[in-house]
Amino acid sequence: MSIKKTTLSILFKDLTFTDEEQDLIASKFELRKLKKGEILLHANDVVYHQYYVCNGCLRTYSVDKMGKEHTLQFAIKDWWISDYTAFFTSTQAIVSIECIQEATIYKVSRENMEVLFDKIPKLESFFRRKMEKSFANFQKRILGSLSMSAQERYNAFLNKYPDIEQSVKNYHIASYLGITTESLSRIRKKISKS
Amino acid sequence: MSIKKTTLSILFKDLTFTDEEQDLIASKFELRKLKKGEILLHANDVVYHQYYVCNGCLRTYSVDKMGKEHTLQFAIKDWWISDYTAFFTSTQAIVSIECIQEATIYKVSRENMEVLFDKIPKLESFFRRKMEKSFANFQKRILGSLSMSAQERYNAFLNKYPDIEQSVKNYHIASYLGITTESLSRIRKKISKS
Repeated sequence: MSIKKTTLSILFKDLTFTDEEQDLIASKFELRKLKKGEILLHANDVVYHQYYVCNGCLRTYSVDKMGKEHTLQFAIKDWWISDYTAFFTSTQAIVSIECIQEATIYKVSRENMEVLFDKIPKLESFFRRKMEKSFANFQKRILGSLSMSAQERYNAFLNKYPDIEQSVKNYHIASYLGITTESLSRIRKKISKS
Repeated sequence: MSIKKTTLSILFKDLTFTDEEQDLIASKFELRKLKKGEILLHANDVVYHQYYVCNGCLRTYSVDKMGKEHTLQFAIKDWWISDYTAFFTSTQAIVSIECIQEATIYKVSRENMEVLFDKIPKLESFFRRKMEKSFANFQKRILGSLSMSAQERYNAFLNKYPDIEQSVKNYHIASYLGITTESLSRIRKKISKS
């Protein structure tokens, strides 16, 4: 499976590669098509891969003891997604990953990433900066969960994932915000009135 | 300010360094003593540094519009701390960092870290792995805030920060758990009874 130069420039933005580097990357990335409803990763699977979303929409979620779903993240075009806790340590996933809108993704294993980091060190810097941004996002999310009202969290969600609302179900959004779907409806009504 | 080989081996665990590398690291790390109550970083400061805690205890917190404090993290011996969102982008802090138990820390600037990564690439790998672990911690924390009861979050806090309870005030813990100090007292009573 080959990756086109244009795809690489979308994936890795400002980075440029020699033909040899490009071939190496292409040999480590695997293209996959996902159907809506497909589960890419099941909780309790050992996690060897992370995924880059070319298009479509995925979400990571966990199910608690009462059977209730909690959405950790959505991933849309140009996002990376995995159960990173498990991916970094090659341990069992605590979240599942579901395709909620038909998607094209690249998958790459941790092992192959280490090979790439070794051969193309600028990729390690690239992924460190990616990680830093995701980390910053998580920090904001935790502070949000401690300090923001449900309506403020809903507005932050809309800013973070523009145009996502039509692709995802209400209970996905509610389970991301930590509220019921009824509360979500009330918030939307309140906003549309104001 | 020089860093001893023993300190380096605590800071960077399994890594070993040449004398030259050690001198370079020492020239970029600055030792500081902090008194209880001292504010190391104020919200809205531009963040240029991250900090390594040799001993003592620090916390990062934000203050909401109503003046209420929310604790994002505690940092005890052998933890790194900063407002990473701001540190990674050299922008203004959204959290403050307070010393809550007399501490000795190392500070290092982002600029100097980039110099170190360039000269000693294994440090970049080291910090990437550190970041991955912190990221995993944040992921667990978000899932916890969505799916765990206050008592479960309290137990997770005790596991994460063993022996910290005597160094921190009740309102620090409550503001970390997102509950009132009264709820925290009720949880502790319930646990001591069971």
